[in-house]
Amino acid sequence: MPRQIDHDARRATIDAAVITIAAESGFAAVTIRAVAQRIGSSTSAVTHYVSSREELLGNAVRREVDARLDEADAAIGERTGNPALRALVEWAMFGAAESGRRFWLAAVLGAEHQPVLRAELERFTVWWDARVRALLTQAGVEDPQAASDVLNVVIDGLVVSSFYGGSPWVDQRREGLLDTVWRALAL
Amino acid sequence: MPRQIDHDARRATIDAAVITIAAESGFAAVTIRAVAQRIGSSTSAVTHYVSSREELLGNAVRREVDARLDEADAAIGERTGNPALRALVEWAMFGAAESGRRFWLAAVLGAEHQPVLRAELERFTVWWDARVRALLTQAGVEDPQAASDVLNVVIDGLVVSSFYGGSPWVDQRREGLLDTVWRALAL
Repeated sequence: MPRQIDHDARRATIDAAVITIAAESGFAAVTIRAVAQRIGSSTSAVTHYVSSREELLGNAVRREVDARLDEADAAIGERTGNPALRALVEWAMFGAAESGRRFWLAAVLGAEHQPVLRAELERFTVWWDARVRALLTQAGVEDPQAASDVLNVVIDGLVVSSFYGGSPWVDQRREGLLDTVWRALAL
Repeated sequence: MPRQIDHDARRATIDAAVITIAAESGFAAVTIRAVAQRIGSSTSAVTHYVSSREELLGNAVRREVDARLDEADAAIGERTGNPALRALVEWAMFGAAESGRRFWLAAVLGAEHQPVLRAELERFTVWWDARVRALLTQAGVEDPQAASDVLNVVIDGLVVSSFYGGSPWVDQRREGLLDTVWRALAL
């Protein structure tokens, strides 16, 4: 069914353009027109697949969140407890390319005005919180809620810090910070 | 000199519009036209004061960074060492309204493509790093560089976390996290 394959590829191209534009300029810049320009087609070639801007955003962000969840699962692999937690946190800190981190911050900033962004972030966060708390419990941490607060803040902070010019965070510096956090949480 | 006063007020209005648009939609959305629309004037009423988009951004962000530096200084007041550090960090965490936090993240994300943003963020960061390291040293911390990394990441992480829906961070939860960090740094 070559025709079906073309449609899938087209949808993937559209979704990728949404993510690229959002990562570059924020979700306010994602419009059907901007996506059409980006992929070098007419707006009707985009509206053939999506009937609204909401659906355009939803498809792309859903695909992106699915991919992140698969990556996170793969990073944990067969590990459990403390090593699984470290693998998951290292994936979150080092796993995403710069464009991936930009996309994430753009989604967090855009969530207030875009219900579909809010829903997809929520889907990721629910998965993440359940996973992190289970691993912290397995690792024998006394207060998994408080420990999970610390981990989440540190990860988000490292994502932001990676955008500051001047003093780029080499992996060693980030690992050192992670060691400090691990000690603080008695992990 | 009423005419002079009008000009100052007009400049302030333009700068405020830049910051509002950037906080809402990112710096990519800040254009002379968008600012004119926001303040209900013609583009020529804006270009009377700035000759380029670069100058438009520069004026507004410079004013904003100046205001932040004044606020940070006021938060520290006459304190020194550990209490001064806590006051400064609490100001950074709790002091900014949501729009202020949005502006900050938008500036960090926009810095790559806007030299004037990069320069102003750098000006703030240089001030901040010098101040934090001096206070950590006064407080008797062994490795001020590592401790300052932890503080910076936690602050940026809390700024991001404040945008997640679902589980808003009440002040008590943030103070609890700050207590954990203070213990981890032996402060």
